[in-house]
Amino acid sequence: MLYTALSKSEALKELALQREKYGEYRKMGLSLDMSRGKPDREQLELSDGMLTVLSTPDQCRPETLGGQDMRNYGVLDGIPAAKELLADILEVPPVNVIVCGNSSLNIMYDTVVRCMLFGSSPETEPWIKQGKIKFLCPVPGYDRHFMICQSLGIEMINIPMNDDGPDMDMVEEYVAADPQIKGIWCVPKYSNPGGVVYSDEVVRRFARLRPAANDFRIFWDNAYAVHGLYDTEDKLLNIVDEVEKAGNPHMVYEFASTSKITFPGSGIGCIAASTVNLNYIRSLMTVQTIGHDKLNMLRHVLFFNGPEGVRDHMKKHAAILRPKFEAFEEAFDGELSGTGVAKWSKPRGGYFISFDMQIGSAKRVWNLMNDCGVRMTNAGATYPYGIDPNDSNLRIAPSYPPVSEIKIAAGVLICCAKIAALEEILGADADA
Amino acid sequence: MLYTALSKSEALKELALQREKYGEYRKMGLSLDMSRGKPDREQLELSDGMLTVLSTPDQCRPETLGGQDMRNYGVLDGIPAAKELLADILEVPPVNVIVCGNSSLNIMYDTVVRCMLFGSSPETEPWIKQGKIKFLCPVPGYDRHFMICQSLGIEMINIPMNDDGPDMDMVEEYVAADPQIKGIWCVPKYSNPGGVVYSDEVVRRFARLRPAANDFRIFWDNAYAVHGLYDTEDKLLNIVDEVEKAGNPHMVYEFASTSKITFPGSGIGCIAASTVNLNYIRSLMTVQTIGHDKLNMLRHVLFFNGPEGVRDHMKKHAAILRPKFEAFEEAFDGELSGTGVAKWSKPRGGYFISFDMQIGSAKRVWNLMNDCGVRMTNAGATYPYGIDPNDSNLRIAPSYPPVSEIKIAAGVLICCAKIAALEEILGADADA
Repeated sequence: MLYTALSKSEALKELALQREKYGEYRKMGLSLDMSRGKPDREQLELSDGMLTVLSTPDQCRPETLGGQDMRNYGVLDGIPAAKELLADILEVPPVNVIVCGNSSLNIMYDTVVRCMLFGSSPETEPWIKQGKIKFLCPVPGYDRHFMICQSLGIEMINIPMNDDGPDMDMVEEYVAADPQIKGIWCVPKYSNPGGVVYSDEVVRRFARLRPAANDFRIFWDNAYAVHGLYDTEDKLLNIVDEVEKAGNPHMVYEFASTSKITFPGSGIGCIAASTVNLNYIRSLMTVQTIGHDKLNMLRHVLFFNGPEGVRDHMKKHAAILRPKFEAFEEAFDGELSGTGVAKWSKPRGGYFISFDMQIGSAKRVWNLMNDCGVRMTNAGATYPYGIDPNDSNLRIAPSYPPVSEIKIAAGVLICCAKIAALEEILGADADA
Repeated sequence: MLYTALSKSEALKELALQREKYGEYRKMGLSLDMSRGKPDREQLELSDGMLTVLSTPDQCRPETLGGQDMRNYGVLDGIPAAKELLADILEVPPVNVIVCGNSSLNIMYDTVVRCMLFGSSPETEPWIKQGKIKFLCPVPGYDRHFMICQSLGIEMINIPMNDDGPDMDMVEEYVAADPQIKGIWCVPKYSNPGGVVYSDEVVRRFARLRPAANDFRIFWDNAYAVHGLYDTEDKLLNIVDEVEKAGNPHMVYEFASTSKITFPGSGIGCIAASTVNLNYIRSLMTVQTIGHDKLNMLRHVLFFNGPEGVRDHMKKHAAILRPKFEAFEEAFDGELSGTGVAKWSKPRGGYFISFDMQIGSAKRVWNLMNDCGVRMTNAGATYPYGIDPNDSNLRIAPSYPPVSEIKIAAGVLICCAKIAALEEILGADADA
């Protein structure tokens, strides 16, 4: 039954019930962490073969590389076989890929910094010389994207997310009108945190953007390209192809890594873009480094032994993650349906569930949960500057805890959300 | 005999002899590369144990880390045992070390970029907002340092190197007079390319600098801290201690890596500095990355099993490198002594020999050698902007080729240097 349709006495009774439940949860002395999208131990174990797959010196001089020794200096932009591996994940030609170090976040940061200091092309001004510049930020979104902008003094503009991607009317209007808008952050497949897969139409509208700024770039963080939870695949239209077709070939930087495929922190990351973009990036990268860790690239190549290896491996991840997502969904469906207390995403992949409550409830719920020993990503974190204008969104990261703990955490969240909703409805009466 | 003391006919005879020799070298169809300081295969093999030392999942959860799983996300600034390993190499406390990825060049680049965008401390202005800034560059020096400045538009000022380090009178004068001077590049031990070890007095004068700029930093690239060629150790005074004593604790950033200890490209690098500096760096780094490759840090820790392991390992490197350096020295001593054609450094460590000829000879010698199939680092590369004002210095990198090839390469260099010297002496008569 809709909470807003409850009579005052019914609402008070329900609140008393939930507070009692909450008291019981508190007594349990919980210590659960659902704050970050970390793989669990079982997922890590899927990649233990990585520890032994590269074990002989001969493997370090693969014939495919003309006998070049991977143990020595050289190869600025990644070994060819690693380019192929990541190119397959992103469905782009290997020539459009530069393989870097262990972190796509670091590649994104460096890419923004390069644009700041040198411009997004040799023909355009460094962003830092162009006054106050701005990025569009579909919300809710990924806190670490927003932190990059905030740290560099780039103004952020919220763009609402729909079920098929960002509000493209708004995106088109903004970028056409304001030459100070230089970029947009996108997680186009299983978005963080909403789990949205951008529709073909949305991808095409991105590709056809006509920005007022000739140095505008789409930061396409395809972090979950192969991270579906179900057998039936969700297809994302290939942005690198689409910008090419639309006559905007240089407008997109795409990013990916194996952080949530093999070992987070010991994976390999990449940037994909037009050859012109990559040549420019290489010309600046060569000042920064002689090259990234080729042995770790080789480990990945040997471990997967081709694209089929990645797909098989990701099915094993899905089998571990799926029950965790479903445990939340079942609990929410069972206990929140029809109450009007919250809406939640039902992602078919990625690492997060987005949980939307009444306006003004998120911080209250976060605090209630925290006091109960259940750690969530900070309320507001999914918005630029950490400010959720409605204070209504929480991000749930189901990957790390076991299902048994998830069931408890879901119960706590449901209880806290109900308390916050009833307090809102009852106002001063709640504590009468 | 001094070439300048030769009679014209003697000089012509000698030139003819050397040109004949050169013709013979050309006929050999050589293809030798002495352009970069790359370890040779035998050196790489010293670290092959790195390929297997970390092979079980249990090793990834060391008890010393409270069971934290190194296969997962986390640890922004490096695992404690890796800090200890690198701290021992630099003789600083582990608390003064941040361990990063595979490349100290990348750390240096990022450090300069951070100063450009954010300032060298929270209290000072970003360098990029302070107009034309400048770096002092002891010469001859490391081309990749100079490329960082050139790429970022930082003006470079040459500082001559003496036998005990940079000309400190000049350094003191410059930094005291000009607040636009924000940094200086130093390779304080077995300098690149001269092999100079900075004397205690030079290090102390660095520590006592009183720069006009309150955001001045010494970039102390201790790339060859444990890379001696001989059993008797060369001691470098510890700059981190000395700046502390001198009341300038935040004036230095020190860098090192295992690139020339284990596998170049698959090593670990670090920055050492005051806690205040490191805290500020961490506050900015956390926007850039979640953390660097902990498994590779762990590999290094397990492989060396303590400081003694590093020292033993470096003795094996020295045993391979020493004959290569000595092959050059013997050839030079035997064939160039007393001719006045060139001076050469006799390094007791590091990766390079500096070779100084008559003014205006370096490019000519480089071209002669190149035409003969012997590749050297470009003439001029050891100076800012690639411009050697005297056109007299060449950098020799003896590490990569086998001794047999070094003997040939030394012969070619000697022959080319003699030709260039005689051409200079004879002027138009040389081709009469």
